[in-house]
Amino acid sequence: MKKACVLLAPGCEEMEAVIVIDVLRRGGVEVVATGLQEGVFEASRQVKLCGDVALDDLENAKDFDLLVLPGGIPGTHALRDDPRVRDLLLHYFQSPHKTIGVICAAALVLDAHGLLEGKRFTCYPSTAPDIQGGTWVDERVVVDGNLITSQGPGTAMAFALKLVERLVGVETSMEVAEGMLFEG
Amino acid sequence: MKKACVLLAPGCEEMEAVIVIDVLRRGGVEVVATGLQEGVFEASRQVKLCGDVALDDLENAKDFDLLVLPGGIPGTHALRDDPRVRDLLLHYFQSPHKTIGVICAAALVLDAHGLLEGKRFTCYPSTAPDIQGGTWVDERVVVDGNLITSQGPGTAMAFALKLVERLVGVETSMEVAEGMLFEG
Repeated sequence: MKKACVLLAPGCEEMEAVIVIDVLRRGGVEVVATGLQEGVFEASRQVKLCGDVALDDLENAKDFDLLVLPGGIPGTHALRDDPRVRDLLLHYFQSPHKTIGVICAAALVLDAHGLLEGKRFTCYPSTAPDIQGGTWVDERVVVDGNLITSQGPGTAMAFALKLVERLVGVETSMEVAEGMLFEG
Repeated sequence: MKKACVLLAPGCEEMEAVIVIDVLRRGGVEVVATGLQEGVFEASRQVKLCGDVALDDLENAKDFDLLVLPGGIPGTHALRDDPRVRDLLLHYFQSPHKTIGVICAAALVLDAHGLLEGKRFTCYPSTAPDIQGGTWVDERVVVDGNLITSQGPGTAMAFALKLVERLVGVETSMEVAEGMLFEG
């Protein structure tokens, strides 16, 4: 069974976070929703979420097949400024068989660590001018090697389904889409 | 400012719950995410959510403009079997200026209390055969008077935007849709 770590920062976009976790689990992926901190926190629109585990207590943080960064402000800033997240991102980027999924404003986190250089990517359109590296593409989901990026809440389901496709397969992804009545 | 109460049962569909809360707040609606019980609970795909308040502690539970029931199993069964929810539903149904929003399997809750009689409604397609009252319509969002119904996770954003349209107005709903990059 494939395994995914979804990083949850206070102020993350709750739709993006919850859609990714839910859809990956529907696709048969083992997901650990990992809070930057312990306990309940408020997401960007004050929905109260709680990780399955706090990052400091997560064993084998480098052994997942997929690392996902939801967007949202100020959650993106918390991810960007966290040295633990930087270390994880660098590890996943350097591992050829691992996938990184980043949506919405969270592309800023990759850019802050120089990880968009030479990459085709997308993000929330109004965030794009603040990004230095890479080539921004105006598509809802963009795949470049092991990096899968997407634009915002309205594209989160398509993004999550693309992650299922990558980890499990296109048939499973299509079955999950059908079960959710998703018309993408 | 319009006010909405979203009822959160353990085992509710987390995408449907979170999308509705988030989108209503983006539309300027004051939302109280109301747990059937206190504290953190697991939704249908084990996402850990927490209400803003527990139903027993909610003041003025009958003074909202909108009552929303997310779907999901077993959350729908918990809503159906809760006499507090029944009382609230009957109150909201009898109040001409209030709106009720119900998505996915949660139409079973309305049906259990005889509230679909004479209504056009929709729900998750495979749930429809289990429903006795009303006329099921195969549309993603169905409006019949003060009852707004929808089908599942993939239609939750359109459902939430329809609720914003009803409470706040079509222009605001369209602005929220655009801000989320929703293509419905």
